[in-house]
Amino acid sequence: MTPAGATTGPVLVVGTGLIGTSIALGLRSRGVSVFLDDPSPTTLALACDMGAGVPLASGEESPVLVVIAAPPDVSGPLVAGALRDYPEATVTDVASVKSEILAEVLADVGPEAAARYVGSHPMAGRSHSGAAYADSDLFLGRPWVIAAPEGANPHSVLAVRGLVVDLGAVPIEMDAAGHDQAVAYVSHVPQLVSSLLAARLLDAPAEALCLAGQGLRDTTRIAASDPKLWAAIVAGNAAPIAQVLSSLATDLNSLVDSLRDYDLHETLISGAIGKVSQTIAAGNLGVARIPGKHGSVRRNWAELEVMVPDQPGELGRLFTELGEAEVNIEDLSLEHSPGNNFGLARLLIDPGVLPQAIEELEERGWRTLSGKAQHD
Amino acid sequence: MTPAGATTGPVLVVGTGLIGTSIALGLRSRGVSVFLDDPSPTTLALACDMGAGVPLASGEESPVLVVIAAPPDVSGPLVAGALRDYPEATVTDVASVKSEILAEVLADVGPEAAARYVGSHPMAGRSHSGAAYADSDLFLGRPWVIAAPEGANPHSVLAVRGLVVDLGAVPIEMDAAGHDQAVAYVSHVPQLVSSLLAARLLDAPAEALCLAGQGLRDTTRIAASDPKLWAAIVAGNAAPIAQVLSSLATDLNSLVDSLRDYDLHETLISGAIGKVSQTIAAGNLGVARIPGKHGSVRRNWAELEVMVPDQPGELGRLFTELGEAEVNIEDLSLEHSPGNNFGLARLLIDPGVLPQAIEELEERGWRTLSGKAQHD
Repeated sequence: MTPAGATTGPVLVVGTGLIGTSIALGLRSRGVSVFLDDPSPTTLALACDMGAGVPLASGEESPVLVVIAAPPDVSGPLVAGALRDYPEATVTDVASVKSEILAEVLADVGPEAAARYVGSHPMAGRSHSGAAYADSDLFLGRPWVIAAPEGANPHSVLAVRGLVVDLGAVPIEMDAAGHDQAVAYVSHVPQLVSSLLAARLLDAPAEALCLAGQGLRDTTRIAASDPKLWAAIVAGNAAPIAQVLSSLATDLNSLVDSLRDYDLHETLISGAIGKVSQTIAAGNLGVARIPGKHGSVRRNWAELEVMVPDQPGELGRLFTELGEAEVNIEDLSLEHSPGNNFGLARLLIDPGVLPQAIEELEERGWRTLSGKAQHD
Repeated sequence: MTPAGATTGPVLVVGTGLIGTSIALGLRSRGVSVFLDDPSPTTLALACDMGAGVPLASGEESPVLVVIAAPPDVSGPLVAGALRDYPEATVTDVASVKSEILAEVLADVGPEAAARYVGSHPMAGRSHSGAAYADSDLFLGRPWVIAAPEGANPHSVLAVRGLVVDLGAVPIEMDAAGHDQAVAYVSHVPQLVSSLLAARLLDAPAEALCLAGQGLRDTTRIAASDPKLWAAIVAGNAAPIAQVLSSLATDLNSLVDSLRDYDLHETLISGAIGKVSQTIAAGNLGVARIPGKHGSVRRNWAELEVMVPDQPGELGRLFTELGEAEVNIEDLSLEHSPGNNFGLARLLIDPGVLPQAIEELEERGWRTLSGKAQHD
């Protein structure tokens, strides 16, 4: 058992999906007493079986902290209910929209009770939902937004901050509106744009898809997301999303007009080439604003590609031999070539050790494709 | 030296950038005689120094095959020039647009000479351009479109097919219009959409970017592409791109209208939630059409996440131990957590060996996050 943290409990977790169960497991691993509740008895039983806590029952000790881990469209009423049911408890939620839930809670219970509500949003998830995929380590090192409303009880703010820190996440303070605008940019709009792009593939001839490369795979990966969950998220953050999407639509409409114009009057001097070039250049500047994976400033890494036979043990041999050469790997990805029995391991490493790494690997018979500088 | 292939040479490669130099290196590694030409003497010298061939000089044996490896906006005139200069040679190009170049060549040299032109397009590249990044293995296992025009000389079609196969690529026959439509869907539109999305980040508050996750990184990775090259590519394929982008714009405009409507009249029954849900569901279907990395039907993989200390040798130990357990890795990625000195290795493996892999790893003290099914 890890040392005791800020959260003493008991904690009530309402909603035992991926996030709720992961929170409960994380608290249990610190010895905190956890009650669980969920509208689905099956889901609740699964979370209990996983050791996430015990079902909420009357007559038990009252929770000091209630965590609402439900979809955004039902979180407001659940928060309000918890504030009424447990008049001493701090209540938080983990939904991915914050302003609308805060407004619902204020309208429902009034400012006095609402002072015990401190909304939050862990920036963590997995490609599958449900308690079965829950893990006490899900939040380790992840940003977790704490959106304390004006007039929030300082004790409640501390309680939520304690929860975040106990689960190993990095607390980030923002107001609800700032949070909602931020996630529109970094999460909601990318989701919708990826879906719109992937939807175009429905019209593409089958043979076109055979030419798909990594660019298409990357840009459409999140298009596999759950429609029901996303409808609730987007509906709860409609205004900030509409604002960003609308700017994007203006740019897109103007690009389409330029391209049509260019196609019709190709021999005339046209703004289309300039327009395309500006579009790509603006994208260059935008993507450069995304911080490095460590959340710090970007730094340069050297890229090293190594051909790896598609057999068990070969990657092990590669990484063992890189370890022997004391080469630490910042990032890696593995790419397979259709119809070939090997893959390409793409490594980002410290440029200072690149020559040594290449030499060590080639001495041992690896085929490397020579390194190049790349931003993290 | 590998066994002799279909290409006997001499081959003239015009344009010694990444693609031209990689083709030349691949031919040289098969013992084919290669002449090189490039408008930049420095670029040409670099390619020669890399062993890609010798500079083109008068009085030499005439090339039997000419490869134009130039940006799309100059490829047409270069193909026409080569058809005139070498009246016996087959001429191909590797530009990412095909119809416009074919039209330029036909208009310039007429149908008789144009019968020796067979356009092509290797679906390979790297994040950096230039001869310095060239590699003879760049095309191994990659699709390479051969767009033989109607009336093309069968001997010339065979010569280009031989080149593609000799370089280890997979030949895919398409006509020029089919190719251009296909790359609009799988390459050009994703590039422009990724750029448009990344450009929105220029308006985002700096603190918003701190919440960036893998979804944003994936959808905007290719937004770092070269504006000059892409202006030429898009200008050469304006009509097919405009058509796909215009359908996307229709969907986007309608989504923005629904969201604005929903935001204003939230209590009214509105189509916005249905609209968002449809958008995401259509994206689900679209992304499901992308074939698996091996070019075959999709199959299920199990995902296994393992926590890896951020020290040299640890990944080696992980992969060695997976190798000992005879676990082959289909795909992998490494994720770092900000502020923590470990990373998360995300592995896709055969679901049949997942329990064994988890057991073997946990016996050796690794922390695993339990596996889940995932499509390749």
